[in-house]
Amino acid sequence: MATKTEDYLGIEDYKVIGSRPIRHDGADKVTGRAVYGADVQFAGLLHGKVLRSPHAHAVIKSIDTSKAEALDGVKAVMTVQDLPELEDKIEDLGEGAANLRHLRANVLADGKVLYHGHAIAAVAATSPHIAEEALELIDVEYEVLAPVLDVRKAMEDASPLLHEDVTTQSLGEDTGKKSNVCAQFQHKLGDVEKGFAEADVVIEREFDTGTVHQGYIEPQNATSFWNQDGQLTVWCSTQGSFTVREQVSEILQVPVSSVKVVPTEIGGGFGGKIRIYLEPVTAVLSKKSGKPVKMVMSRTEVLQATGPTAGSYIKVKMGATKEGKLTAAQAYMAYESGAFPGSWAAPGAMCIFSPFEIENVLIDGFEVLVNKPQTMAYRAPGASNAAFASETIVDEIAEKLGMDPLEFRLKNAAKEGTRRSDGPVFPRIGNEEVLKKGLNHPHYRAPLEGKNRGRGVAGGFWFNVGLKSSCSATVNTDGTVSLVEGSPDIGGTRTSISMQLAETLGIGVDNIKPAVVDTDSVGETDVTGGSRVTFATGWAAYEVGLDIKKQMVERAAKFWEISEEDVEVEDGVYQSKSDPSKSLTFKELAEKSNQTGGPVIGKATVNPSGVGGAFAMMIVDVEVDPETGKVDILRCTMVQDAGKAIYPPYVEGQMQGGAAQGIGWALNEECAYNEKGELTNSSFLDYRMPTCLDLPMIETEIVEVPNPGHPYGVRGVGEVPIVPPPAAVANAIYHAVGIRMQELPMSPDRILSALWEKNGGSG
Amino acid sequence: MATKTEDYLGIEDYKVIGSRPIRHDGADKVTGRAVYGADVQFAGLLHGKVLRSPHAHAVIKSIDTSKAEALDGVKAVMTVQDLPELEDKIEDLGEGAANLRHLRANVLADGKVLYHGHAIAAVAATSPHIAEEALELIDVEYEVLAPVLDVRKAMEDASPLLHEDVTTQSLGEDTGKKSNVCAQFQHKLGDVEKGFAEADVVIEREFDTGTVHQGYIEPQNATSFWNQDGQLTVWCSTQGSFTVREQVSEILQVPVSSVKVVPTEIGGGFGGKIRIYLEPVTAVLSKKSGKPVKMVMSRTEVLQATGPTAGSYIKVKMGATKEGKLTAAQAYMAYESGAFPGSWAAPGAMCIFSPFEIENVLIDGFEVLVNKPQTMAYRAPGASNAAFASETIVDEIAEKLGMDPLEFRLKNAAKEGTRRSDGPVFPRIGNEEVLKKGLNHPHYRAPLEGKNRGRGVAGGFWFNVGLKSSCSATVNTDGTVSLVEGSPDIGGTRTSISMQLAETLGIGVDNIKPAVVDTDSVGETDVTGGSRVTFATGWAAYEVGLDIKKQMVERAAKFWEISEEDVEVEDGVYQSKSDPSKSLTFKELAEKSNQTGGPVIGKATVNPSGVGGAFAMMIVDVEVDPETGKVDILRCTMVQDAGKAIYPPYVEGQMQGGAAQGIGWALNEECAYNEKGELTNSSFLDYRMPTCLDLPMIETEIVEVPNPGHPYGVRGVGEVPIVPPPAAVANAIYHAVGIRMQELPMSPDRILSALWEKNGGSG
Repeated sequence: MATKTEDYLGIEDYKVIGSRPIRHDGADKVTGRAVYGADVQFAGLLHGKVLRSPHAHAVIKSIDTSKAEALDGVKAVMTVQDLPELEDKIEDLGEGAANLRHLRANVLADGKVLYHGHAIAAVAATSPHIAEEALELIDVEYEVLAPVLDVRKAMEDASPLLHEDVTTQSLGEDTGKKSNVCAQFQHKLGDVEKGFAEADVVIEREFDTGTVHQGYIEPQNATSFWNQDGQLTVWCSTQGSFTVREQVSEILQVPVSSVKVVPTEIGGGFGGKIRIYLEPVTAVLSKKSGKPVKMVMSRTEVLQATGPTAGSYIKVKMGATKEGKLTAAQAYMAYESGAFPGSWAAPGAMCIFSPFEIENVLIDGFEVLVNKPQTMAYRAPGASNAAFASETIVDEIAEKLGMDPLEFRLKNAAKEGTRRSDGPVFPRIGNEEVLKKGLNHPHYRAPLEGKNRGRGVAGGFWFNVGLKSSCSATVNTDGTVSLVEGSPDIGGTRTSISMQLAETLGIGVDNIKPAVVDTDSVGETDVTGGSRVTFATGWAAYEVGLDIKKQMVERAAKFWEISEEDVEVEDGVYQSKSDPSKSLTFKELAEKSNQTGGPVIGKATVNPSGVGGAFAMMIVDVEVDPETGKVDILRCTMVQDAGKAIYPPYVEGQMQGGAAQGIGWALNEECAYNEKGELTNSSFLDYRMPTCLDLPMIETEIVEVPNPGHPYGVRGVGEVPIVPPPAAVANAIYHAVGIRMQELPMSPDRILSALWEKNGGSG
Repeated sequence: MATKTEDYLGIEDYKVIGSRPIRHDGADKVTGRAVYGADVQFAGLLHGKVLRSPHAHAVIKSIDTSKAEALDGVKAVMTVQDLPELEDKIEDLGEGAANLRHLRANVLADGKVLYHGHAIAAVAATSPHIAEEALELIDVEYEVLAPVLDVRKAMEDASPLLHEDVTTQSLGEDTGKKSNVCAQFQHKLGDVEKGFAEADVVIEREFDTGTVHQGYIEPQNATSFWNQDGQLTVWCSTQGSFTVREQVSEILQVPVSSVKVVPTEIGGGFGGKIRIYLEPVTAVLSKKSGKPVKMVMSRTEVLQATGPTAGSYIKVKMGATKEGKLTAAQAYMAYESGAFPGSWAAPGAMCIFSPFEIENVLIDGFEVLVNKPQTMAYRAPGASNAAFASETIVDEIAEKLGMDPLEFRLKNAAKEGTRRSDGPVFPRIGNEEVLKKGLNHPHYRAPLEGKNRGRGVAGGFWFNVGLKSSCSATVNTDGTVSLVEGSPDIGGTRTSISMQLAETLGIGVDNIKPAVVDTDSVGETDVTGGSRVTFATGWAAYEVGLDIKKQMVERAAKFWEISEEDVEVEDGVYQSKSDPSKSLTFKELAEKSNQTGGPVIGKATVNPSGVGGAFAMMIVDVEVDPETGKVDILRCTMVQDAGKAIYPPYVEGQMQGGAAQGIGWALNEECAYNEKGELTNSSFLDYRMPTCLDLPMIETEIVEVPNPGHPYGVRGVGEVPIVPPPAAVANAIYHAVGIRMQELPMSPDRILSALWEKNGGSG
């Protein structure tokens, strides 16, 4: 069945891949030695703080910074006037894009504030306390405007406009119409009217999902030093050091070579640490003051002013024959962009119906400006919202047809050769294998007894991305290999990349020393996002391995004074075909490298296309407390196709992490804005993420359907596990207490309301 | 005349090479931003101090550290017992070698102290003050022995022995004889007896030269953190990060891959920052305490306990015919090794007669243990001592023959094809060109009038070394190139290496961003020493340039969809041979790299053999004050063959620096040991180096005889300029006041003594 491309090696007998070695970054992290952005220290360091808007929507009539500038200890003050003016230019960030003019106005408000917490001015002072004091001395005169907070209201012609200069881009064309709808698009497959006509069961429902935050533990931070020779160095916690370099270079209008970005360790990102916020501000403050300037956001600043992911309004209609065949699916997907264009309806639309083979599909997508922070990627961005809609409707159809919901999904499963509504035809994917594994899973087969308890399932798809990665590596004389890479390591990729190099070289992964280095010290490498690093940077490491192996063969030939053709390599042992007594391990050959021509260096750069789409499904048991509306998760299993799981503990960790975040989104998480557009829950006490006490141990089941588009069969694994949970939990709640929830989060008050409504309006 | 090897490109029309651009490290250094070893800071950093011996020679009967350990704030205490025991093993350090067992005993005394300031124990504490206090609480019981301080007395059988286990190695064989003479060797060419028989003039004299210190401005330092996963990171100021890695790995008996060395900026080395002192001590203290530990030597510690260069006793006999032809030369060269074997008689012997073509040569060399710190390289180590002897005798012979001393040297000059007494035959060298340039120099032609004034000349040779260097580089999308190298930059090599890459690529050197990175991030690179970096690492950069150029041709071909054969490159412009309208600059092509296959990365590793020997000569005018014996330098010119001067200001800087140090050595510098072996001048107030007030502007004249063994004709330039000064100044003093000085330094008291002796013993 599998169509193997020339890339996939088809090896099954791996030595390193699939094992569970000690991770390279473990000791540093557990002993507190890892250097995160906030740990960066320099002599003469100044501390920066940002003045933020108390209003969600207002015109800035004036800013007077003179009193702040006069405060003793203040070394520099800036506003947007200190950033060069920019033309419209769209910059691809790897996950999402940025219009540079808007990026500038997001970094520091340009005439208007567009969300509560929007940055207005910044100060650098000799202590954080003086900087804070100085903020209070900055006088800003506002003309407060009505905030636009709801995606549907924002789309109305009568809605106040966030931007006078934004017009709707429709199907790639500029309509010239001023609107908060910054973009609309359509995906079409077959004839959806005909499809619905063929259906025996048609369900149509509307869904609202709240704005949620990535909630990484480490706040955004940046330290910049702009030297007098024009060289700018930025230390920061980021998912993409080269992405930061590109954005900083564009915002400040300096060549990329004037900017060196040093990525520190990163305490979570989930898509939220790609766009820049503080970097250009610290840079300009450094230029003005002549000193290094550091900024670390507070938790409140993170929640108020950094990219949450889009809240959305989604209407979905799906139809199936009584034999259980899906005939048509239609979606209207309106996603928040936040304060500036750029949104997540597009990837949502790529995912919403992709787990299914449906002949007739019509999707209309809308990206809508609202007075909230500009939205940013968050783990399979847009797909969880979408799956919440489609996967609960599928559950309802299966129920109406009296079919097992997994059997129903399996019957309609997308497979190799299925065309997605956004165009691509699936190569070999693991969708059916995942569903079958779920169907036969002990959890799914186990009885679930007790009142107010129910079991739900849901699937999910994420397409993953490829992009550019570079690696280089040098062979040490003790047989170890120092690996240099440019992918910031969020989820343990130092080890998963090293394992692919080790496998290629036939040595142990403890012999690889990986390092994530600055932008001057490695080739350009795209963002850590899109579930791409183990796939693409791992591929680069594989190519580095081939390069080194080739050179080691040359060295062996030189050492034995035989031809290179006479050297064969197996399991890291180099030997002469014609004289097996000539045999050297990789280590022994490495020890001779100085006699055979000096150090061996390998390098590679890749930009692979054959990303493997990822599928996951969740089985979840819940108990609903009808008195309080609280939902308890009793048992939860995540099944996912990893292609080939390079380092299974990390794959399991991603599955568990995605499940936990998805459950948080399902039950509690939401950025709560009041009618003025103020964020009212800007702390982790009020922005309620699940804790250990809220969740059972999440069971994981890795399915391995190798990706034919990668030499070791890798698919991305980081994002897809967040897709099924909201729908799976909603389905479980239905099976527990009979209510179909259509709003996220399914918080106790909403559950109670729905129960009251179901019971005729009484509590 | 020139024999060009295939390596030498023979290009004369360089665009970048030979120009005087702004140096890459300038802004950081002049603004105080460059991070030197002492600037390294970490949270929880402990401060280490070393207890040092007050005796020059003593048995350690006991060490009691218990009181120090009990002091509040002390986190770790160590002695040599905390270092693993080692077998004898000779480690090549690039400039000089180390027996690892002795290196260990130098790092911390093992049963015996062998010089004043020898390290005995070390403490890490929460502050430097507590660490110092703790040192005073360590009780050491000594049995004081008679110190051995004079090289000739040390050679006597009756001399106390420094080491019971050292026997004389004679001509590579172990004689089994216990002696302070750790090694002796012989170079022989022709028949020296016959040569002297043919001579009409024979001069034989004895010379003593003092022990001198490199006197770098930045003291030795090291900060280590030994993580709980066994990974050790060392930050230090060193001439060779890989050399430190190797030594630390051997001393601590851990694999090199467990050690990462991060080279900081370095404030001078001159050969003195190759051997390790503090690195393993901070490492073990870090392991014991679980914290990072930093040590910075005081100036006193540097002068007492780090490698000075060898004092020596040299006897030289040379003979010439009355026509001015040198017929024979003989030398007896006894050099101090200091406290442990390993010395500089060998390189001294390679240089002493090499500027001359002499058919009959006999050299006997001796390396002698004395109770002084183990000697270390110092700019052309051993050669200044040697030239002081040979070049003053040559001056005397020329005088006796009534010949101009430069004409005499030119008549006897070694040239291409001349065999050195140590074996090699000279390739194309610039010896004659340098002498001719001196002979015709306006300084040499200018009259010198006035009482007690004299002019002296002397030549000098240094062989230079090649060794391993690695570089990699990535092309940025703005057309700049980030260059990664492993050679710590002492003398501005970031720029001289970048210039060779820029020249190869046909772009400006301001488009190269060089970085010296840690040992995990670049291929193995040998020590910055032996005048090798601009030669060998520059060559690696040239190879990187070729690698990138080749890839850029592929990219251009891909972009234009033409064959690679159809692409030609001139001055950094890529164009189609068949269609000249297809033309892109390097920058334009770099901007397209993401469309044509992603980042372009180049890498290279070299281990070149064709080092070009270097020749220099000095013309110096002095005035001697007969009342005080003080010598003033009136005018000074250094002439030197640079091969091709890549960055002329640095070549001039090396010539001036070498001249200044050589003059210091000539007139004032000496480690002054009293009869107990105590160093009595361990501060820069007492160890008298020349200041700006002591020297005129040193004039420089670069001669360029391209080295056929390097693509750009580079010869090393850093070391040879220290060779001529002591002899040139001695000759000038003779021509001023008629005394032939045979002892270094030629300090006022010695000048006065010689004047009194000349005048019949009266002042």
